[in-house]
Amino acid sequence: MNNSRENKTRVDLIIHNAMVLTLNDSDDIFHPGVVAVSDDEIIWVGPEDSWPARFEPREQLDMAGGLIMPGLINAHTHAAMTCFRGLADDLPLSVWLNEHIFPAEKKISGELVYQGTLLACAEMILGGTTTFCDMYLFEDQVARAAHETGMRALVGEVLYDFPSPNYGPPEQGLAFTRDLIRAWENDPLISVAVEPHAVYTCSPELLRTCNEVAEEYQVPMIIHLSESEDEVAQVKERYSTSPVMHLEKLGLLTPHLIADHCVVLDDEEMDLLAERGVSVVHNPESNMKLASGVAPVVELLARGVTMGLGTDGCASNNNLDMFGEMDTAAKLHKVYRLDPTVMGARTVVQLAVRGGSKVLGLENQVGCLEPGKKADIIGLDLDRPHLTPLYNIYSHLVYAASAADVTLNIINGRVVMRNRELFTLDVERVMGDVRAIAKRIKP
Amino acid sequence: MNNSRENKTRVDLIIHNAMVLTLNDSDDIFHPGVVAVSDDEIIWVGPEDSWPARFEPREQLDMAGGLIMPGLINAHTHAAMTCFRGLADDLPLSVWLNEHIFPAEKKISGELVYQGTLLACAEMILGGTTTFCDMYLFEDQVARAAHETGMRALVGEVLYDFPSPNYGPPEQGLAFTRDLIRAWENDPLISVAVEPHAVYTCSPELLRTCNEVAEEYQVPMIIHLSESEDEVAQVKERYSTSPVMHLEKLGLLTPHLIADHCVVLDDEEMDLLAERGVSVVHNPESNMKLASGVAPVVELLARGVTMGLGTDGCASNNNLDMFGEMDTAAKLHKVYRLDPTVMGARTVVQLAVRGGSKVLGLENQVGCLEPGKKADIIGLDLDRPHLTPLYNIYSHLVYAASAADVTLNIINGRVVMRNRELFTLDVERVMGDVRAIAKRIKP
Repeated sequence: MNNSRENKTRVDLIIHNAMVLTLNDSDDIFHPGVVAVSDDEIIWVGPEDSWPARFEPREQLDMAGGLIMPGLINAHTHAAMTCFRGLADDLPLSVWLNEHIFPAEKKISGELVYQGTLLACAEMILGGTTTFCDMYLFEDQVARAAHETGMRALVGEVLYDFPSPNYGPPEQGLAFTRDLIRAWENDPLISVAVEPHAVYTCSPELLRTCNEVAEEYQVPMIIHLSESEDEVAQVKERYSTSPVMHLEKLGLLTPHLIADHCVVLDDEEMDLLAERGVSVVHNPESNMKLASGVAPVVELLARGVTMGLGTDGCASNNNLDMFGEMDTAAKLHKVYRLDPTVMGARTVVQLAVRGGSKVLGLENQVGCLEPGKKADIIGLDLDRPHLTPLYNIYSHLVYAASAADVTLNIINGRVVMRNRELFTLDVERVMGDVRAIAKRIKP
Repeated sequence: MNNSRENKTRVDLIIHNAMVLTLNDSDDIFHPGVVAVSDDEIIWVGPEDSWPARFEPREQLDMAGGLIMPGLINAHTHAAMTCFRGLADDLPLSVWLNEHIFPAEKKISGELVYQGTLLACAEMILGGTTTFCDMYLFEDQVARAAHETGMRALVGEVLYDFPSPNYGPPEQGLAFTRDLIRAWENDPLISVAVEPHAVYTCSPELLRTCNEVAEEYQVPMIIHLSESEDEVAQVKERYSTSPVMHLEKLGLLTPHLIADHCVVLDDEEMDLLAERGVSVVHNPESNMKLASGVAPVVELLARGVTMGLGTDGCASNNNLDMFGEMDTAAKLHKVYRLDPTVMGARTVVQLAVRGGSKVLGLENQVGCLEPGKKADIIGLDLDRPHLTPLYNIYSHLVYAASAADVTLNIINGRVVMRNRELFTLDVERVMGDVRAIAKRIKP
């Protein structure tokens, strides 16, 4: 080792004594391995025994033989809906929406959204998520909560043809969105998208204007698309075409479009999504619980569509657990196609991390552990009965691990959780606040 | 309160300051409630403010606002297969079995089964399971491990037409089973069943003899039945009838038969299972991962078939987590039938607890919290972000809770786990031993 002073490189944090799953292009696994972080960035990743002698770490974090990997990316959720977790389940969709969720949402306020999102951030951080993509009302409060808790987030105010409890008349929605985009345009962690709710709730004019704003600011446009047969039937009745073909006719299938769900698609539509470079987010647990159907994920991946994985909101899941979502994604398609070889564990982990980073346009920043990427890193304790023995780390992550195995969460170089302790929010206070909100929702 | 000495009743344990979910016939929930235990038995259950003044508890356990409920019953597993967890996944069934599981099983020994089962018991106890039903080789070692860890178990040596690494030639299998039955016949926690593997691996003669032994000792007979289209095709080729109809012709569809999986059934077969009083265990995650299909659980329940829930073994799941299994059971059937109202959360919790107790013939002993039942009780910490807020406890248990939320496990009146600490085994040593076994399986 060269100990001469002049060659030293200050390193903020060395995480070592871990299996390091990089998810980089060559799928490197270093065991044991090391990740070095300076400021908000990963500066070195490699085997334990070969980290540069010039490194002078300010802090060393011993993972005690655990796992280090890139943070999970929840590519579609409605974070504040934690407030409605378990409020109404196992009901017909129309009863669920019209008699429970919509009435509950009439009572929402910026305060509910802020507190609900704080609670969601606590759950996501504890479960190894470092980035989430959100669609809801009072999205300025979602951004505020994500910012305070140190999470990376792509947020956007939901837009539709009727008045909003937040911005009021529909024509104010895009002004609100523009303000939100400008408010966060230089933030290292928070970015903003334009988010029309769905084809059946947004006029062609609104959808076109949304796209213009997205292009003007070079931000993604995000929409629920072809989530159920019901949606398709409604759209066909109104526009004599399917939701996907409706967007195609409007010229809105673009590489900056992120389409959530995409359960009901025919071959032509899948070809078109691939051709146009539209990204798709898969939400298997929500699609199952609401009985929406099984998205043709295997077919979309085969066509090269960029895909991520999301939990959807807590009214239709009922948690924000990406480990559960990975497990379900892997198993659902096997049984649906009666083929145990589809959606292998490695494919699913890629979907939940790297896929999500591509979908959200964050590919250059996060999604794998390599020098130059932002330090969004999670650690898992592998020394647990349900993770013993270890033959294949991908299998463990998808089929055996749980959110509770996460013992470290670093976002943008900042340790936000260690040994299940949250450093960026007072979780007991937040749980108390959300319980008080729940009492108002259902006295 | 009456404090006079002569009226006092000695109570071993009072568990209080909890929501008490009884799962009794009237579905009582006491919030806050109390459960009182003396020796191995529940002697009182009721609201916190009304427990009898005569009670003189030796120990009081404050659940800090958590949940108390009956222990979960894993009604079908192969516990020792923890040793093969993640060894081979995402493969075609024949490759998985012939190139990975069967070769690995050639290396098995009593020692592997003992250690693998200890590990399984650790995982199950930590995950809130109090009873499991097992089928494997060297089942004497399964009984030994269950006994040592204090779990309630129904075990049975797998029987088939070919030589066994345990008992040798096929004709020795029933002698081994008889010995096993006799060895445990007076044990309060361990009981033994007769367990022919399946219709396609057991001759009609073997199946008939199994049933005779089951009748002789008045124990259940347990079999894998109609697990996949492949099995049905094989049986049809050999016997010109389906697995279920084959058993019917042999006169083996009886109230003491427990049939695992039952994925491929037609209406006539379902009617017959109901009519004959056969019990069925549902294993949704295994059926999904191995791409076996979706069992007609909704139809079976509608016919009044007694059903339980099981994880199957760790080579096809890959964990023993009954919370994950409940979540999957609830969601799978909703999407499969495109009906969000089927398999509601309460139905699924009943399946995992009370249903399992009925399937295993333990209904008089466990499955609900009421005086006279054995004290198989678990506690969950509800003060967690992913369980906040709380509108409906059944929804939480099925859709939001995880194995890691379990903080208390009492079996037959004995506290085997508290605050994630296991009292009946040295989990670090067991994990070390299974890791050493895994190195021999896959060097």
